[in-house]
Amino acid sequence: MSRLLDDIDSPESLKALDIDQLKTLSNEIREFLIDNVSKTGGHLASNLGVVELTIALHYVYNSPWDKIIWDVGHQSYTHKILTGRKSLFPTLRKYGGMSGFPKRYESVHDCFETGHSSTSVSAALGMARARDLKKEHYSVIAVIGDGSISGGMAFEALNDAGRSRNDLTVILNDNAMSIDKNVGGLALYLARLRSSPGYGKAKRDIKGVISRIPYIGDSLVSGIERLKNSFKYIFVPGMLFEELGFTYIGPIDGHNLDELISVLRRVKNMKGPLLVHVVTVKGKGYKFSEENPERFHGIAPFDAENGHEETSPDMTYTKAFSNAMLSAGARDKRVVAITAAMKDGTGLGRFAERYPDRFFDVGIAEQHAVTMAAGMAAAGLRPVVAIYSSFLQRAYDQIIHDICMQDLPVILAIDRAGLVGEDGPTHHGVFDISYLRSMPNMCVLAPKDGQELDKMLQFALSMDGPVAIRYPKGATYYGHDAHQTDIDVMNWECLQFGADVAILAVGRMVGIALDAAAILKTMGINAAVYNARCIKPLPSSTLADILINIKRLVTVEDNIEKGGFGSSIAEFIFDNDIKGVDLDIIAIPDRFVPHGSVDKLLNKLKMTPQGIASRIYERINGNITVRNRG
Amino acid sequence: MSRLLDDIDSPESLKALDIDQLKTLSNEIREFLIDNVSKTGGHLASNLGVVELTIALHYVYNSPWDKIIWDVGHQSYTHKILTGRKSLFPTLRKYGGMSGFPKRYESVHDCFETGHSSTSVSAALGMARARDLKKEHYSVIAVIGDGSISGGMAFEALNDAGRSRNDLTVILNDNAMSIDKNVGGLALYLARLRSSPGYGKAKRDIKGVISRIPYIGDSLVSGIERLKNSFKYIFVPGMLFEELGFTYIGPIDGHNLDELISVLRRVKNMKGPLLVHVVTVKGKGYKFSEENPERFHGIAPFDAENGHEETSPDMTYTKAFSNAMLSAGARDKRVVAITAAMKDGTGLGRFAERYPDRFFDVGIAEQHAVTMAAGMAAAGLRPVVAIYSSFLQRAYDQIIHDICMQDLPVILAIDRAGLVGEDGPTHHGVFDISYLRSMPNMCVLAPKDGQELDKMLQFALSMDGPVAIRYPKGATYYGHDAHQTDIDVMNWECLQFGADVAILAVGRMVGIALDAAAILKTMGINAAVYNARCIKPLPSSTLADILINIKRLVTVEDNIEKGGFGSSIAEFIFDNDIKGVDLDIIAIPDRFVPHGSVDKLLNKLKMTPQGIASRIYERINGNITVRNRG
Repeated sequence: MSRLLDDIDSPESLKALDIDQLKTLSNEIREFLIDNVSKTGGHLASNLGVVELTIALHYVYNSPWDKIIWDVGHQSYTHKILTGRKSLFPTLRKYGGMSGFPKRYESVHDCFETGHSSTSVSAALGMARARDLKKEHYSVIAVIGDGSISGGMAFEALNDAGRSRNDLTVILNDNAMSIDKNVGGLALYLARLRSSPGYGKAKRDIKGVISRIPYIGDSLVSGIERLKNSFKYIFVPGMLFEELGFTYIGPIDGHNLDELISVLRRVKNMKGPLLVHVVTVKGKGYKFSEENPERFHGIAPFDAENGHEETSPDMTYTKAFSNAMLSAGARDKRVVAITAAMKDGTGLGRFAERYPDRFFDVGIAEQHAVTMAAGMAAAGLRPVVAIYSSFLQRAYDQIIHDICMQDLPVILAIDRAGLVGEDGPTHHGVFDISYLRSMPNMCVLAPKDGQELDKMLQFALSMDGPVAIRYPKGATYYGHDAHQTDIDVMNWECLQFGADVAILAVGRMVGIALDAAAILKTMGINAAVYNARCIKPLPSSTLADILINIKRLVTVEDNIEKGGFGSSIAEFIFDNDIKGVDLDIIAIPDRFVPHGSVDKLLNKLKMTPQGIASRIYERINGNITVRNRG
Repeated sequence: MSRLLDDIDSPESLKALDIDQLKTLSNEIREFLIDNVSKTGGHLASNLGVVELTIALHYVYNSPWDKIIWDVGHQSYTHKILTGRKSLFPTLRKYGGMSGFPKRYESVHDCFETGHSSTSVSAALGMARARDLKKEHYSVIAVIGDGSISGGMAFEALNDAGRSRNDLTVILNDNAMSIDKNVGGLALYLARLRSSPGYGKAKRDIKGVISRIPYIGDSLVSGIERLKNSFKYIFVPGMLFEELGFTYIGPIDGHNLDELISVLRRVKNMKGPLLVHVVTVKGKGYKFSEENPERFHGIAPFDAENGHEETSPDMTYTKAFSNAMLSAGARDKRVVAITAAMKDGTGLGRFAERYPDRFFDVGIAEQHAVTMAAGMAAAGLRPVVAIYSSFLQRAYDQIIHDICMQDLPVILAIDRAGLVGEDGPTHHGVFDISYLRSMPNMCVLAPKDGQELDKMLQFALSMDGPVAIRYPKGATYYGHDAHQTDIDVMNWECLQFGADVAILAVGRMVGIALDAAAILKTMGINAAVYNARCIKPLPSSTLADILINIKRLVTVEDNIEKGGFGSSIAEFIFDNDIKGVDLDIIAIPDRFVPHGSVDKLLNKLKMTPQGIASRIYERINGNITVRNRG
């Protein structure tokens, strides 16, 4: 059976269709998405929610001339289908294949890359201002979810854009949830807007009035302002956005193509900053994802017939943290847990169930999460802030300014540290060691396994200052000390003796280092392997002992090579004036690592057991290439 | 003549006064502030604006039991006077003296430290939640300016607090300006609130209604909600805050003690999240600061009689940047300038005057500033974002995610890098080298003088990727090459030959290194001195040449020692397997540096010419102490 979809390879081809055909196409795209994502894994629910919206946008606007910016970007699959990348879907999120996010190198239709939340309005305003300065003419549209719009930088951008005269359209894609259930006053406000009786009529009235006033220039603005003001206190449901300077249009049914297209056509000719409130259903059109959109947010390959996922590993670092938090919560009533819209992703779901009063999901608001935790610590609680490594970057300043400077006992539980795999460069957590270790008063720990993670959390809760515990996505490593009872988290653990070279490995890299040592053994090299679980402060006497006995060190970490763990060892050596030491820093190179499975990426980076063993062998045998990492 | 102020040494002593005495006291405090700040320098205008508000707060609430958090904190002088620190004012901002910001070590009344903007609501909500979990009873008050409340993290906190049931009072200190003139939709909204006709009546009505409803518990909430909803669309001026879940009270005259005290007394007994809108005049009560609040924001010692400041140095890095931007703007129409509420502080005032269309002050919104710049660069402009080093920390994630990952040609002009002096640890810009050099694609430059700064800006504007130029507060150094015409900014400059040791110095430290070399000469040591103006990428062939000829290196930088410039040299040495090199990293130690003049701080840190020369001499002569920096 021939599909309309088969002939769609650009926004132009879309424009040849009539509205009934567009409806058919949206069904075909849903089938296509479910079929493909069930095989590759990926983001499903968010993409099923914006099929009609994306079709309508590309039908009404002219990309790439008009610029569409997808906030977060994990909802851009339909956009990718409509812009000639349908055939790449079997390679979705695979190494060398199509990214799950907008990428400028993939298509001229991806005008700005995204990945983290709440950036789209800022980028769109920048483009709109550039366009106006250059006296060019095109539309700029930011598509942002109700979760993302609660992030502080989105507010900063709305605040700036609202005052500006620049034409700019913000599409608020309101599905009443971010990754986890949405929170905050703004979410309640949006809920009121959605359910507001009589909004339909008011909306039509206001839109009628506004669309009949020609935009001539500044001279009319104050008149329009007066007119709007006289209406809006009574009629307009979008007061909050109107107060910031936006013209609010909505709410609109995001699955009604007729309404979407008709409204967007009018919007396209309106002036100034506009906010179009589109209501969608996350996971729309697939029974299992409508019922359980969180599970189908980012998902592994699954069975399209019954929605069952491939089974995940028995014990992950996340699950270990989840367990550790339950125990900690039981032991100490001062322990509270904070997350930024990642309750389930961080493993805090069970803590939230068991201790609802001590669980705080602040929404997509990492900055606030960290400083609120500082406030809690100052008032006698023991807050644990669980945020993914790359998202915690948002709170860099707050960690220094509000936690470290006051030396407050806040614990940062940093999941998704190191390479995360399929989500790619925006989500790899490869900067945390570099930035955390440069902060005074911060203690930085990395467990090699779940048991250590638990001990580290206990230790951190006994401390009077800040502690960061960073651990990766995925299955925990089971070392030969998996049942060790006496763990000194502030010291390193010697897992294997060896006189030729000492490998100091961090977190997930410990298991890989042990395997590398086994390979080296077959090459005649005896490597000692240390679990460098304490990154800052360095256990100076242990490290000095190692340096006295073994003059050849190799550090292995899944952090960027600049300023990371290896760099701290280099500093230590010079700082203590230890002579004759050779140090090889094996780390993520100084460039952005693409998407792909973690195993594939480690392989490409030569950070597998074989890759590490070969590099050590060659360095020992003098076959090194002098490289400039400058 | 005896003053009331002489007997005020605690909030308790304040409570013994009647309202007329409080008015007298507020006049005395103003005189005291003008008198003292004219001698020591400091923040004046912000403090003059909140004299009555601070008196009213301490009169009505009971600190330290009740918690008052001062956003930014530079307006806490009256608070310091009322909490027993009057006698410390002659030491204000001096090394070892009283800080210009709240410090927990100074007083139990300083319950949370501040310095950067927009943190207070998060901290207050954390405290309120801690209080409620621990079933304690006290009030938590955040005092936040209209500039600070436009920062994204303040919105995140309001959004979270608005939904919570926790009792919390946010005092919006609205003086219609942040450091520079306030901008954004929110500012216009607040202006409408202030001027809204009939707000007085509506305010009284609503307050009457609300205060007559006893707060019993959740059962009444929906009733109150309905009641409030029926009123607020017509009467309540603070809709924007009401929509987020706050009860809005105001606007109130912030210089009318009767009104302030009467309203705060009622507020103290109200439940849930409250926002009290207080209108103040920045610089109130001193002719010169009322007329020119920007100049009296942070000021050097001045003549109290005529408001004249001590003259500032002839040529500062800031002025050099200011000049360089004027030239760049003239040469290239694509050049635009962006600042986050620091137009004059960053030296962009003249650019803004000359090229108003190409100047963008986004308000206190560093995250938005950086990503908006990325949007502009993606659309063909050449944006220069001028933000102080410690404030740029707010945009750490945006620099990685929106600039570096897309390799966009955005220039970061980073003023106040290194030690800033009197503002202290919250404002020292000592992390930027560490964090910027860990970001792929980022080029990091540091000029030793104004001429180099100009060349670097020209160079950066010719590049296709991101460039950061970091430079300190204060007078530029005039080296012997001040009129050099051929500057290769991507390479280092040898300022002095010497065979015993090579000093690699960064930015402001170059002049100090030259002076250190002169002292070393008298000790019989010949030091080479390099101006290490390009921090990343390292000029590898120059550096390799140095390492071939001189086996003893010393790096000197005004950045934290962890992961900084010296650390990058350590990495280079090991990465290139260069043997037999001694490296001494002279940098800001791994702790927070207090306030005090830059000279005094450098002296205490032994980073003066003499301190550096002695350290080099001792290391050469083997008198080093093995230190653990771990």
